[in-house]
Amino acid sequence: MKAAIVAVGSELLAHGRDDTNGPWLTGRLRQAGIPVVLRLLVDDHRGRLAEAFRLGLAESDLVIATGGLGPTEDDLTREAAAAALGVALRRDTAALEAIRARFARFGRPMAPVNEKQADVLEGGEVLANSNGTAPGQWFSGPRGILALLPGPPREMMPLFETAVLPRLQALVGARVLRTRVLRIAGMGESEVEQIAAPVYATWPGVETTILAGPAEVELHLTAEGATEGEALGRVVPLAEALQEALLGRVASDDGRSLPEVVGGLLVDAGLSLAIAESCTGGLLSSRLTEVPGSSRFFDRGFVTYSNESKTALLGVDPELVARHGAVSVEVARAMAAGARRAASAGVAVAITGIAGPDGGTPDKPVGLVCFAVETVAEVRVRRSVFPGDRDRVRRQAVAVALEMIRRVLLGLED
Amino acid sequence: MKAAIVAVGSELLAHGRDDTNGPWLTGRLRQAGIPVVLRLLVDDHRGRLAEAFRLGLAESDLVIATGGLGPTEDDLTREAAAAALGVALRRDTAALEAIRARFARFGRPMAPVNEKQADVLEGGEVLANSNGTAPGQWFSGPRGILALLPGPPREMMPLFETAVLPRLQALVGARVLRTRVLRIAGMGESEVEQIAAPVYATWPGVETTILAGPAEVELHLTAEGATEGEALGRVVPLAEALQEALLGRVASDDGRSLPEVVGGLLVDAGLSLAIAESCTGGLLSSRLTEVPGSSRFFDRGFVTYSNESKTALLGVDPELVARHGAVSVEVARAMAAGARRAASAGVAVAITGIAGPDGGTPDKPVGLVCFAVETVAEVRVRRSVFPGDRDRVRRQAVAVALEMIRRVLLGLED
Repeated sequence: MKAAIVAVGSELLAHGRDDTNGPWLTGRLRQAGIPVVLRLLVDDHRGRLAEAFRLGLAESDLVIATGGLGPTEDDLTREAAAAALGVALRRDTAALEAIRARFARFGRPMAPVNEKQADVLEGGEVLANSNGTAPGQWFSGPRGILALLPGPPREMMPLFETAVLPRLQALVGARVLRTRVLRIAGMGESEVEQIAAPVYATWPGVETTILAGPAEVELHLTAEGATEGEALGRVVPLAEALQEALLGRVASDDGRSLPEVVGGLLVDAGLSLAIAESCTGGLLSSRLTEVPGSSRFFDRGFVTYSNESKTALLGVDPELVARHGAVSVEVARAMAAGARRAASAGVAVAITGIAGPDGGTPDKPVGLVCFAVETVAEVRVRRSVFPGDRDRVRRQAVAVALEMIRRVLLGLED
Repeated sequence: MKAAIVAVGSELLAHGRDDTNGPWLTGRLRQAGIPVVLRLLVDDHRGRLAEAFRLGLAESDLVIATGGLGPTEDDLTREAAAAALGVALRRDTAALEAIRARFARFGRPMAPVNEKQADVLEGGEVLANSNGTAPGQWFSGPRGILALLPGPPREMMPLFETAVLPRLQALVGARVLRTRVLRIAGMGESEVEQIAAPVYATWPGVETTILAGPAEVELHLTAEGATEGEALGRVVPLAEALQEALLGRVASDDGRSLPEVVGGLLVDAGLSLAIAESCTGGLLSSRLTEVPGSSRFFDRGFVTYSNESKTALLGVDPELVARHGAVSVEVARAMAAGARRAASAGVAVAITGIAGPDGGTPDKPVGLVCFAVETVAEVRVRRSVFPGDRDRVRRQAVAVALEMIRRVLLGLED
């Protein structure tokens, strides 16, 4: 079973607004084994709304609509759904009474416009809404299943959980979906694709998606099964084959972020990390301390933005800076050594570079970043030129630094 | 003219993901006088994608698609758009050369799969993308206008601004819309709304939107006019009335971020800033060094995560920590004093807190953060308890610290 979600309301298409129900429903449906293949956000226009329902019904087995069930003339979901399904609307007496009772309970008179909230798709069922006046609806016919839910999340969510989800589970049974996310730093999207595509092309029954972030690539692998074991039995062997094909480049396959992986390796090794950053200005420290419990592996960091601070805090020789420039592998190496010494840490990492937009030269262009990682046993350095703006250069530098630490800790070559 | 937006990519329909391009484009189009009536998010499925384009073309005059222009077999936007329009694709020699040149510039070999990124809709134009390998496309025909843009926002946004928007303005005429964004840190959304609503209710002809971020509130004020002067004549008086009503709480009204405002004030005052961070772990330094040219006001930062590092780097008396705890205004004050001394800086800020999820006590709950700002003339401290998870606590702490520095520099009371 595949699903489409239709979010109804001109306000969702106004500046600075968005639909929050769709992402929530997408997650809940995924967990129930029902992938969402299409989402539509439509303004309050009867014809367009009916076309949106037609497309949803044509491209999926289940359409869930949110919003447009209110009493005003802008609320057109019922009419549009009826038009798309080719069925009539009938006024449901019980639903009407429930709306009346709700108004009475809050001591307010019911306006005549509210009566249309009791209009139900012919052949459909009313889903009683205990958190608002608009009841939901469930319709199952030859063209597919249609569930109409109110727009306010505090009404929509409980109605989905109590009325829609049980009906779906009765239909799809105990189908379960399991996903593995392989996270790869230090490789480009097409480079990963080049290696991964021949592997997953030979693996039927697993849905694969490649996702490129600012400095990381993710491979999402999803398979379905009657049981968790069956779903995992499909997805895990492919994950393992990809791990092998990618030669240790996969930092995590369980959703953990690169900082979490590096933090875990440090804790396992009983090592603490010292950080010395110049162009990334605290971003690496900030990413590592996103990890709860990071005090177990991180004790201090130095943001040494000026040359003077590199000397004062890390003991970098001013002559070294004069000779090679602040952005050089030599200075990166001295920064790492100084940070490790100053923090009495097991591992130290240093980053120095030119994030831009200014400060580049033909010799040392914007995007040039030099790295060093020092442990008691070895020192590794790296010099990269990253494309993109200031923000992207900094993010890529942080990802590369994390990947360098990961490889040092695992004894993998660069 | 009405627009539809098609966001392409299975990853947008995965759990926990969403399309961020659509809301941005909706705002930009709205400012150009083009309302968005339909948004579609579609998985990487050729047939469904073609149907989405057909619906977009049927229901609007302009379809803007984002994503699916990469080199992999999942990237189907070109093929689907061609199918919906009923035109062929041709390989564009100039676009192919541009892609090759881009790879050469970064010293990487171009994979054969990248060649299809030069496939262009017959009769369409190539929109050169200087920030990535995927060129955009512009197609105008009897069924409507179709613009294909890359998915990564850092590529999509500049391409929209430089290539798509001018073409649209040539069609619809350049309507003059002017927006003021009032940025407010350290106040909640409803608190701002409470003060602002009565002010803008009496101001006709200005569209107002309130947007609440993780630690900041933005008021967007937009007015239209035949000329820039007319538009500004509507929006500026309201902006000024709101500034006054909000009593100096507005950090910027020209789109500058809080770090940019604080950086500008430091440069104007000829002061440098030293930073000492515990629970925010480098996030404040990282935010301030996002600002290009931040070396003019920032020299060094200390991420002092452990108690030992607070003593070693900032000279915080261990007895003070033992008496008041590391998370206390007393220790924050000592951290700021130590950072200012160690960096010979004009201003120092210190943050120490409990970001969670663990480490809280009844006395010092998760979310408690203590701050200090020290200048040559004064010391200010603050103690706040922030709601939300680790990430949200850290972001709120950074915003409050920036706002404290801003107010000290402007001589405003807290």
